[in-house]
Amino acid sequence: DLPLTLIAGPCQMESREHALEVAAALAEMTAALDMPLIFKSSFDKANRTSLSGRRGIGLDAALPVFAEIRERFGCPVLTDVHEAAQCAPVAEVVDVLQIPAFLCRQTDLLVAAAGTGAIVNVKKGQFLAPWDMKNVVAKLDGAGNRRVLVTERGASFGYNTLVTDMRGLVIMARDTGCPVVFDATHSVQQPGGLGGASGGQREFAPVLARAAVAVGVAGVFIESHPDPDSAPSDGPTMIALKDLPDVLSTLVALDRVAKAHPLTM
Amino acid sequence: DLPLTLIAGPCQMESREHALEVAAALAEMTAALDMPLIFKSSFDKANRTSLSGRRGIGLDAALPVFAEIRERFGCPVLTDVHEAAQCAPVAEVVDVLQIPAFLCRQTDLLVAAAGTGAIVNVKKGQFLAPWDMKNVVAKLDGAGNRRVLVTERGASFGYNTLVTDMRGLVIMARDTGCPVVFDATHSVQQPGGLGGASGGQREFAPVLARAAVAVGVAGVFIESHPDPDSAPSDGPTMIALKDLPDVLSTLVALDRVAKAHPLTM
Amino acid sequence: DLPLTLIAGPCQMESREHALEVAAALAEMTAALDMPLIFKSSFDKANRTSLSGRRGIGLDAALPVFAEIRERFGCPVLTDVHEAAQCAPVAEVVDVLQIPAFLCRQTDLLVAAAGTGAIVNVKKGQFLAPWDMKNVVAKLDGAGNRRVLVTERGASFGYNTLVTDMRGLVIMARDTGCPVVFDATHSVQQPGGLGGASGGQREFAPVLARAAVAVGVAGVFIESHPDPDSAPSDGPTMIALKDLPDVLSTLVALDRVAKAHPLTM
Amino acid sequence: DLPLTLIAGPCQMESREHALEVAAALAEMTAALDMPLIFKSSFDKANRTSLSGRRGIGLDAALPVFAEIRERFGCPVLTDVHEAAQCAPVAEVVDVLQIPAFLCRQTDLLVAAAGTGAIVNVKKGQFLAPWDMKNVVAKLDGAGNRRVLVTERGASFGYNTLVTDMRGLVIMARDTGCPVVFDATHSVQQPGGLGGASGGQREFAPVLARAAVAVGVAGVFIESHPDPDSAPSDGPTMIALKDLPDVLSTLVALDRVAKAHPLTM
Repeated sequence: DLPLTLIAGPCQMESREHALEVAAALAEMTAALDMPLIFKSSFDKANRTSLSGRRGIGLDAALPVFAEIRERFGCPVLTDVHEAAQCAPVAEVVDVLQIPAFLCRQTDLLVAAAGTGAIVNVKKGQFLAPWDMKNVVAKLDGAGNRRVLVTERGASFGYNTLVTDMRGLVIMARDTGCPVVFDATHSVQQPGGLGGASGGQREFAPVLARAAVAVGVAGVFIESHPDPDSAPSDGPTMIALKDLPDVLSTLVALDRVAKAHPLTM
Repeated sequence: DLPLTLIAGPCQMESREHALEVAAALAEMTAALDMPLIFKSSFDKANRTSLSGRRGIGLDAALPVFAEIRERFGCPVLTDVHEAAQCAPVAEVVDVLQIPAFLCRQTDLLVAAAGTGAIVNVKKGQFLAPWDMKNVVAKLDGAGNRRVLVTERGASFGYNTLVTDMRGLVIMARDTGCPVVFDATHSVQQPGGLGGASGGQREFAPVLARAAVAVGVAGVFIESHPDPDSAPSDGPTMIALKDLPDVLSTLVALDRVAKAHPLTM
Repeated sequence: DLPLTLIAGPCQMESREHALEVAAALAEMTAALDMPLIFKSSFDKANRTSLSGRRGIGLDAALPVFAEIRERFGCPVLTDVHEAAQCAPVAEVVDVLQIPAFLCRQTDLLVAAAGTGAIVNVKKGQFLAPWDMKNVVAKLDGAGNRRVLVTERGASFGYNTLVTDMRGLVIMARDTGCPVVFDATHSVQQPGGLGGASGGQREFAPVLARAAVAVGVAGVFIESHPDPDSAPSDGPTMIALKDLPDVLSTLVALDRVAKAHPLTM
Repeated sequence: DLPLTLIAGPCQMESREHALEVAAALAEMTAALDMPLIFKSSFDKANRTSLSGRRGIGLDAALPVFAEIRERFGCPVLTDVHEAAQCAPVAEVVDVLQIPAFLCRQTDLLVAAAGTGAIVNVKKGQFLAPWDMKNVVAKLDGAGNRRVLVTERGASFGYNTLVTDMRGLVIMARDTGCPVVFDATHSVQQPGGLGGASGGQREFAPVLARAAVAVGVAGVFIESHPDPDSAPSDGPTMIALKDLPDVLSTLVALDRVAKAHPLTM
C-alpha cells in the first residue's frame, strides 16, 4: 500500500557521464511525481546473445559511479551480480543486489548475495512458475536474509516470445510475502528474435506496466535511455527518457486507484 | 473512449425465473455505477466436456426470456450460436450474436451471423494469435457486416491452462478496428482441469479484469450467478452476484484513468 | 501390433480426375510396401483463414468420387464433417467420418457422427491435453459407437506455432483404448503464419512421422499432392507424391522395430 | 552416421563405490550392444530447488573417481561446470565439460570451458529456440573450440512442464553443424512439480528416446541409478539400471534404421 516505486536506468553503464545524465533526468521526473526512485544499471552484461556484444564498463569502473549517483541524487542504487565472488564488493556500494532471471536457481549466488545483508531482488526465471519463487525466496531466507524483492519479467511462450501472466504478480506476493516488482521492459523482450541479438517490442512496455500497476505492485522496473536505438544492449525494449514522464504519470494515477482498492484474496 | 460496458449474466439460462433474477440484480448494480449493461446467457452449451453436462433450456424456451429481459430492463441481450441455421431465429430477438472461441474459424457460421445484420461478438480462439483476428473480422466484413466486437478470453499455455497476453487487447484493436472486450471469467478457465469438466480460478477473474481495463477496453465480460458453486456449468469461474459491485466499482475507477490517458501507439 | 496404416490423399477434393490420380498413385506405392491405405480428402474446407480461400467441390459432387475410389482401389475412404446434418449422408458412402480438431468438443456433431455407425476419427484439438481426449471418446461411446480412432495433430505453442508432444501418443492410447493416428502434415502447420493463410514446414513432416512411428502408432496421416505448391489449401504442409515412397519405406522399417519392441507402461 | 553413443550415469556422484558400481554396470551393458559409452555424473548440483537438497561429493573428491573410471572402463567421462574457475581443473581429468541448460547463455563460463580444449557439451536452455543455439556455439567457436556437442532437454511449455520439439534436433544439427544429443531423462522433468523439488515422468523417457533416435541423433543421455526412488536428486526421472538394457536394445535397433535412412533436408 506504499506508493509505486520506480526502478530505472540504462541497461548497461556505458560511462560515468552517461549514467549521471540518465540519473539526473530520472531524479527530476520522479521528484515531480513524488515517486520513489531506485537507480539501476549493469556493470557487466554477462549473457549477451553474441560474443561481440558490448558488456559494460566493468565492476571496478562502475562502483564509484554508483556511489556518486547515490550521493548526488539521494536515491538507492541497484545492479546485478553473476558470480558469488562479486556479491561482497558490490554490496559495499550498492543497495540492492539483483539476481538475473537465468541465474535465479543458482544456489551459491543466492547464498552469497543474501550473506551481504543487502536487499536482494530476484528476477523470476522465464522457465519458472510464479508459485516456484517461494523456493527461491526460501534459499535467501535460509541464508539469513529477508529483505527480498521478487520481479516478474515474463515467461517463455513458444519460441522467441515471452508472455506475462498477470496472475503471477498476485501469486508471488501471496506465496513469498515479498514486495513484487514488474519489469516492463524485459517482459517485452523477444529472446533471440533478431538472430544474433534479442529483439523487443518497446511499444508494449507501457501496456504491460499499466496492467501490472492496476493489479497492484510495489514497483515497476523500466530500463530507459536518452537514445535507445543507439544503445549497446536492450535498445529494442528500452523507453526513451523523453517518453517516460507520460508513462509514469499514467502509472501513478492507476496506482492510486489500485492501492485504494486492494485485492482481497 | 466511451465508458466501460459490462456484458454479464449466468453462463447458461437455467429457467425464466433465474434469468430474470440475475438480470434484475445486474441492472440495479450497473445503474448505480452509470455503467452500460448487455445481458448475456446461453440457451445451449454445445461443447460441454461431458455428454451428461447440463446444456441449458434450449432455443425455443430461451428466446421469449431474452425478449422479456430486453423489454423489462431496457438493456441489449447477447447469446451464442453454434450452427448457421440458428443465426436467423436468434437474431430476431437478440441484439448481439456471439461466436464461441472454438468456432471462430467456421466460415459458414460467421457468414450466417453476419447476414442477420445483428452485432456479432467473436471470441478469439484459444489457438489464435491476436493479429489473426483480422482474418476473422475480414470474413464478417466480406459478408457485409461491420458491427463487430472481438473478445479476448485467453490463449493455450501448456496443458489445461490459459494465459492472457495483455498486448493482445491493443493488437486486436489496432488490427481489426473493432471495439475489444475482455472476458474475465473464461480467461481463468482451466480447460479439462477437473477431469470430466473444466476447472477455473474465479479468484483471478478480478485480477485480469483490472489489468485489461487499465490497458483500455470497450467492455468486460463477466459471467455471474447467485450461487456459482451450484451452477450447472462454469461454476468454478463465475463470480457471485454479491461480490460483483466491489469488482465493478474498481473497474469503473480504473477505466476513468485509462480513458483519460489513452495509449498512443 | 498391426502394421502401420497410411491415411493419405489431397487436402481437398479438387476434381474427380485429380482425386483418382492421387488415389491411384497412393494405392500403387502402398501395395509395394504391403501397407494398408485409407484414402482421405475433404469435400469442404469449412475453416479457411480467408473467405476467398477455395473450399472444395462440395458434398454432392464428392460422394460419388469417394464411392468410385473405394470400389476401384479396394481401400476404405475418409472425409471430415462439420455439421451434424452432414453425418448421415456422408456415412452412406464413406467408411471413416473425421471430426476436425477445432470441432472435437462439439457434442451434437460427435453424437451425430457416432450415430451413423461408421468409424469415427477425432482429431485432438490444438487446445486440448492428450488425457482430455478420454472425455471426447466417452461422448462417442455414450452415443453407442466404440469404433473410434484418435489423431494427434499438434498443440498450440506460443503464437502461430504447433508442437507435438510425443508422450501424447502413449497417453491417448492408454486413456482411450483407441488406435492412435499421427497426422504428420497438419502437425507442421504454422496457423495463420502467412497472414491471410496458414503456413507450414513440409520438410519437417517426415521428421515428426519418424518420431511418432518409433514410439508406436496404428497409423500415419499424410496429406499428399502431385504439386503441393499449386494446391488450393495446405500446400505448405503437403508432401509431393513423388517424395512419398522414400518417406513411407523408412516409416515401415521403423514400424517393424517399434512393433517388435512394444512399450511397456 | 556413426552408431548411437550413450551418455549415462547417476545424476550426482554419491560416493566412489556408488559411481564405480554404476559405471561397471553401464560398461557391461553397452559392450554387449557394441555401443560407445560416456560416463556422466555431477560433482555438485548447483541449482537444486531447495537449499537442503543434497549437492554431491564436491570437486576435489570427484576428480580422482572420474580418473579411475576413465582408466578402469576405458570410457570418456563427462561432468558439468557452473563457474568459470572450475573449468581448468575439471578439464585435467574429464573429457567432456557440460554447460547446464540454465547457464547456456553465460559468456564467461562458455569461454572458460572452450579455453580448456576439452570437448564441450552445451545443453539448450528451456527458454531457447533450437535455432538460437547457433549463437551459443558461435561463442565457443569464437573462443577457439570447435569440439562441441549440443543437447536437447526440453522447452518450457506452460508451467511445471517441458515439451520436446523433435524438429529441434534437426534444426540444431543444421544450424550448428555439431553432433546432437538427446537428453531423455531431463526432458521428462516436471520443473518444480513437487513443490520443494522437481518431479518427473520416468516412464516417458524411453518414449522420447525412441522418437529422437528415429529422427537421428549422435547420442542419447540417460541418467540411471541402481535405485532411483532413493536417489538424492532427479530420482523421479532416472531409469533403473535393471530396466536399461531393454531400452538400449530398442534404441540401437531404431538407430540402425535411422542411420540407414538419413533425412535429406
